Amino acid sequence: MNQVQTYETIQDRIQQVEERIRAQSEGHHPELSAALDHLLSSGGKRVRPTVTLLMGGMLEADPDRLINLAAAIEMLHTATLVHDDLIDESLLRRGIPTLNAQWTPAATVLAGDFVFARAAKLASDTDSVEVMQMFAETLVVIVNGEFTQMFSNLEDLRREEYFERIYAKTASLFEVATTAAAVLSNVNQEIQNSARTYGYEIGMAFQIIDDVLDFTSEQSTFGKPVASDLRHGLITLPAIYYFDAHPDDPDVQLLLGGNQINEDGLSRLAESISSSSAIGETMNEATLYLDRALKALKRLPDSPERDALEDLAKYIVCRDY
Amino acid sequence: MNQVQTYETIQDRIQQVEERIRAQSEGHHPELSAALDHLLSSGGKRVRPTVTLLMGGMLEADPDRLINLAAAIEMLHTATLVHDDLIDESLLRRGIPTLNAQWTPAATVLAGDFVFARAAKLASDTDSVEVMQMFAETLVVIVNGEFTQMFSNLEDLRREEYFERIYAKTASLFEVATTAAAVLSNVNQEIQNSARTYGYEIGMAFQIIDDVLDFTSEQSTFGKPVASDLRHGLITLPAIYYFDAHPDDPDVQLLLGGNQINEDGLSRLAESISSSSAIGETMNEATLYLDRALKALKRLPDSPERDALEDLAKYIVCRDY
Repeated sequence: MNQVQTYETIQDRIQQVEERIRAQSEGHHPELSAALDHLLSSGGKRVRPTVTLLMGGMLEADPDRLINLAAAIEMLHTATLVHDDLIDESLLRRGIPTLNAQWTPAATVLAGDFVFARAAKLASDTDSVEVMQMFAETLVVIVNGEFTQMFSNLEDLRREEYFERIYAKTASLFEVATTAAAVLSNVNQEIQNSARTYGYEIGMAFQIIDDVLDFTSEQSTFGKPVASDLRHGLITLPAIYYFDAHPDDPDVQLLLGGNQINEDGLSRLAESISSSSAIGETMNEATLYLDRALKALKRLPDSPERDALEDLAKYIVCRDY
Repeated sequence: MNQVQTYETIQDRIQQVEERIRAQSEGHHPELSAALDHLLSSGGKRVRPTVTLLMGGMLEADPDRLINLAAAIEMLHTATLVHDDLIDESLLRRGIPTLNAQWTPAATVLAGDFVFARAAKLASDTDSVEVMQMFAETLVVIVNGEFTQMFSNLEDLRREEYFERIYAKTASLFEVATTAAAVLSNVNQEIQNSARTYGYEIGMAFQIIDDVLDFTSEQSTFGKPVASDLRHGLITLPAIYYFDAHPDDPDVQLLLGGNQINEDGLSRLAESISSSSAIGETMNEATLYLDRALKALKRLPDSPERDALEDLAKYIVCRDY
């Protein structure tokens, strides 16, 4: 099988994953089907199930259990987005109205719970206690991370906290995706560790790049950096680099002093960060994660899937940048 | 072991269950420990873990896995209460402030998610794929039931919908508690079926009696029936019996006609229901469930635990009445 065939196979499998996800609302309230369809149609790139399928395909996991795992991973991701958007009162995600923009908070809470519940059921349908335990533990890590973020304040902006946060938010799910795919493949511990490392490292890189894009992508109307994290009081790696290098910037002093900073100040700060060397430094950091992911990949079986995982890792770091 | 010893053993085990539940917040955000402590201190009677421990004890399940199961069941129950109270905007439960009375909706959503996540982890720590699958499926049933209730209207007050609703809300969790306890015990299918029947039937009886108590218990200040379900637009079995027997009651006609009914009308209706034969008829229905539970119990091994489960079933139907 060459690489083009690998991509075609993966496209077929992703279709199966989506069908399995849609099937989760069968026999339940019709509004829940509508919600699942809506969530699926919001056009995510299905990076997580793709990684899962490629890793499991390479290591020869049972195809049907692998589909369950990939669907469980994507649904867990979706469930956290549903509750996140509710909590942040976000009305749009990828240009499409969020559930909470259309439903009451109460219905949105339950819809999120339903997606969690079906994700847990799919994870248990992998027929592996180990996978199920990892999956549940990841859910704990993700929720604990969100909780910590909610109760955190600007003083907690040390690098260590940042990396803990993006692990909880993003890398933990990539990590469980690749590790669980390996567990379903009955490979030895060494291979499983390499699979885990790949997932962890690309997950970290993925979120760091996301945090860079928040500064480098521009709002279409005004050409200003989006900087939505900064506007939500969330300090990400580019900001940490900038703050460290420019402790005397009056906007930085205002923000770190715990004072209110107005829209002008925020825009100015976002502009300063996005045009500073903090962006390049953050990109370099992401590249270190990418390198470790690629190194881990080299220890896995030479295969078209491995080539595809290599491309995917590079794509994650280079997207839109 | 005689029955007194059985109760003492169960008390010890319940302590262990509570310790295991408290341990679930270790290493996580301190506010989550505080929330778990608060939820545990709210003085529930621990009926679900007690049933789990007695059934598993009788069928000789591995004690440690059984503790995990009982803790998972109680935490799943607790998680649904956290989100329910948020959805209903309830400020008190058993006289103690709810989480949402003290926290923001956002923090309450996450706290509920955290309890769900830890419940799932505990369920996976039973080391049984079958238990994990049942557990996840029960979570789906519960959430689907709440969802259906939220989107239901007064026309859906047929008996069939009522019984579906209380199965989802209450009996499904009792059912999984006893069935999973049997699964952990490696008994044959026949014994497992009897365990399941016992759990299902007492769960149904438990909720029916709860719905009776809502009419027969009085608000301390005014001596009027609480009738909180009716006030929330929820039609339970006593109301269904009354509506069927009194189609000409003007308050019934008003309510079923989809009209607004004022506080006077609601109080009058609650009073009418609570002093009608609907209460006795509903109690009779609960007794049928109790009888089936006791019949199922007879097919299980003669033991002090069985005697305790018999007492518990009778207690459920007779409590506070």
